[in-house]
Amino acid sequence: MVRFFPDKLKEYVCKILQNVGLSQEDSKVVADSLVGANLRGVDSHGVTRLPIYVKRLKLGVVNPKPNVKILEESDATLLIDGDNGMGQIVGKKAIELGLEKARKNGAVFIGVKHSNHFGTGAFFVQMGVKKDMITYAMSNAPSTMAPWGGIKPYIGTNPFAFGVPAGKYNPIILDMATSVVARGKIITAAREGKEIPLGWAIDKEGKPTTDAKAALDGSVLPFGGPKGYAISLMIDIMSGVLTGAGFGPYVNNIYGDFDKPQNVGHFFQLIDISRFMPVEKFKQRVDQMIEEIKSSPKAHGVDEIYLPGEIEFNNEKKRRVEGIFLTKEVYEDIKAVGEEVGVNIEEYLYVDKSIGKNVVPDS
Amino acid sequence: MVRFFPDKLKEYVCKILQNVGLSQEDSKVVADSLVGANLRGVDSHGVTRLPIYVKRLKLGVVNPKPNVKILEESDATLLIDGDNGMGQIVGKKAIELGLEKARKNGAVFIGVKHSNHFGTGAFFVQMGVKKDMITYAMSNAPSTMAPWGGIKPYIGTNPFAFGVPAGKYNPIILDMATSVVARGKIITAAREGKEIPLGWAIDKEGKPTTDAKAALDGSVLPFGGPKGYAISLMIDIMSGVLTGAGFGPYVNNIYGDFDKPQNVGHFFQLIDISRFMPVEKFKQRVDQMIEEIKSSPKAHGVDEIYLPGEIEFNNEKKRRVEGIFLTKEVYEDIKAVGEEVGVNIEEYLYVDKSIGKNVVPDS
Repeated sequence: MVRFFPDKLKEYVCKILQNVGLSQEDSKVVADSLVGANLRGVDSHGVTRLPIYVKRLKLGVVNPKPNVKILEESDATLLIDGDNGMGQIVGKKAIELGLEKARKNGAVFIGVKHSNHFGTGAFFVQMGVKKDMITYAMSNAPSTMAPWGGIKPYIGTNPFAFGVPAGKYNPIILDMATSVVARGKIITAAREGKEIPLGWAIDKEGKPTTDAKAALDGSVLPFGGPKGYAISLMIDIMSGVLTGAGFGPYVNNIYGDFDKPQNVGHFFQLIDISRFMPVEKFKQRVDQMIEEIKSSPKAHGVDEIYLPGEIEFNNEKKRRVEGIFLTKEVYEDIKAVGEEVGVNIEEYLYVDKSIGKNVVPDS
Repeated sequence: MVRFFPDKLKEYVCKILQNVGLSQEDSKVVADSLVGANLRGVDSHGVTRLPIYVKRLKLGVVNPKPNVKILEESDATLLIDGDNGMGQIVGKKAIELGLEKARKNGAVFIGVKHSNHFGTGAFFVQMGVKKDMITYAMSNAPSTMAPWGGIKPYIGTNPFAFGVPAGKYNPIILDMATSVVARGKIITAAREGKEIPLGWAIDKEGKPTTDAKAALDGSVLPFGGPKGYAISLMIDIMSGVLTGAGFGPYVNNIYGDFDKPQNVGHFFQLIDISRFMPVEKFKQRVDQMIEEIKSSPKAHGVDEIYLPGEIEFNNEKKRRVEGIFLTKEVYEDIKAVGEEVGVNIEEYLYVDKSIGKNVVPDS
């Protein structure tokens, strides 16, 4: 493991992205999303994504300086063209435009087309929650999941995120893929020659499999069977069909297609709480709900009942102090990206002043 | 089984409801919802609910003539007081007010408090879909589901419904409980002395159980584990916490509490498709998606891939012609309700003219 202070890791990401054409401001947005995911313990959506982002920017298949603009607008809706920018930049701009409208008119539904992989949905949800808005973030994704009853991937593991401000407590933040597990875990198992649990995926003939390689040739399974599949389909209809973005197999693969933009679509919802009840009263009610759930009798073997997002807030609190630990593999990957664009990662490492070098705990 | 023409069954329901205080118009709304559910094959939400509805109306714990009114309003939001009316009546009024606003301003989020059991979410979703609106309907419900990691019921099996118009095909209509199965199925198993499959419920100590009676003393399980639980929690936050209705255990039980109103909350969303793209273009895209999914390669043993709601449309088509078949038990229940309020069910039965009596298929 290699240790970083969060701010230094952000600086490293910013520097690299600026060297492949992003503005200083936009590079900071992407760095906030990636390092924010690492802080929250969602390492699958952290700086491990930097190499593919940089590769696509260098190939010119992602636009480093998008002109994000409103295509259609009503009192309660926005349709936004992402101009093939990075999803984090496009999504942040969409939320900013949406916040303005929701503050003025009470709420807004925001569709986005011509975008790319947007990182974690929690990144956008937190932006809205900070402004006392109940916030939803959804995105479609390249097809890796078969229709229920089918065997050939059609929809993506379309993520769904939802955030609600609380009073005394951290906000409730749900951020989930609509598959049983992220496909990345199956990729890791295949690489390490390990089996996967039954129920994660089917092979290309539609049979349940524990063979990670066969799973990658097949389809990942939706969470919750046909119900989860239907929710994933709903996300694609909102993010893809309604916005004019790609949908189903017409969202291009970030890792597999280097000729065309991804044409990912997103869908956001912002709701001004104060249009329903005073914000303080709402937060008291959320606090009451949190307290009642936390103090609810626990199942055998359960030490604590967690609210959605609570574990991630605990991770963040810890990692802000202790730093972020990257695996050797991720470290080497992002180091190589730096070398390609003339940035030396060693200048950004955590250094223990007393001994003059990067140290990590024994574990 | 006892056979009814749908229209005659509706007439019977209307007559009964009018005899316990509903206006003719409102009785028709409830009858449309209940018999509509029977037509769609969702018999758990059909006329089997009539006895409890009538009981609550007679006890004065539900208001037969609610003054449904707007409490708060912005360009994109509505907060509605249901005045303790039947959920179907309150919800329909909310959708009507919402359609007006969404047509004018592009979309609307609608919160409802002081309501009751609203029947199927599909009933409301279909109203919006007919007007070319993407429509969501959610409701909270009495607590029967423990927090994830807990053993004591806190939230309900909060239903989630979603509808999208198509062009050549039937609309896509999702209508689901956020539990693995409806609690009604466990009640039925307990009554018949049957075991339930593992994974449906836990006993009061939190242990997985196949004993239906132990399950009823315990908690039903959410679909999709912690992810489904989080979605159910989200529905309660929107429907209950945000609207000022009951939430968690403060939604009163329709079958268990005859002293107080239920104070159920609902949440609806209506989105005018034309604010994103021409409606015809959207419907072509939905049709394309439907065709691609339907023609996708099938898993072994699967004859046909169905879209959400498709099976229900097939049921409806069949039952409109063949009639609705009620089990002897449901028939006796609703017959008794008629007798209580002076309506004779025999006048509403399907009669085969050639032989002059009610006939049902052998099956």
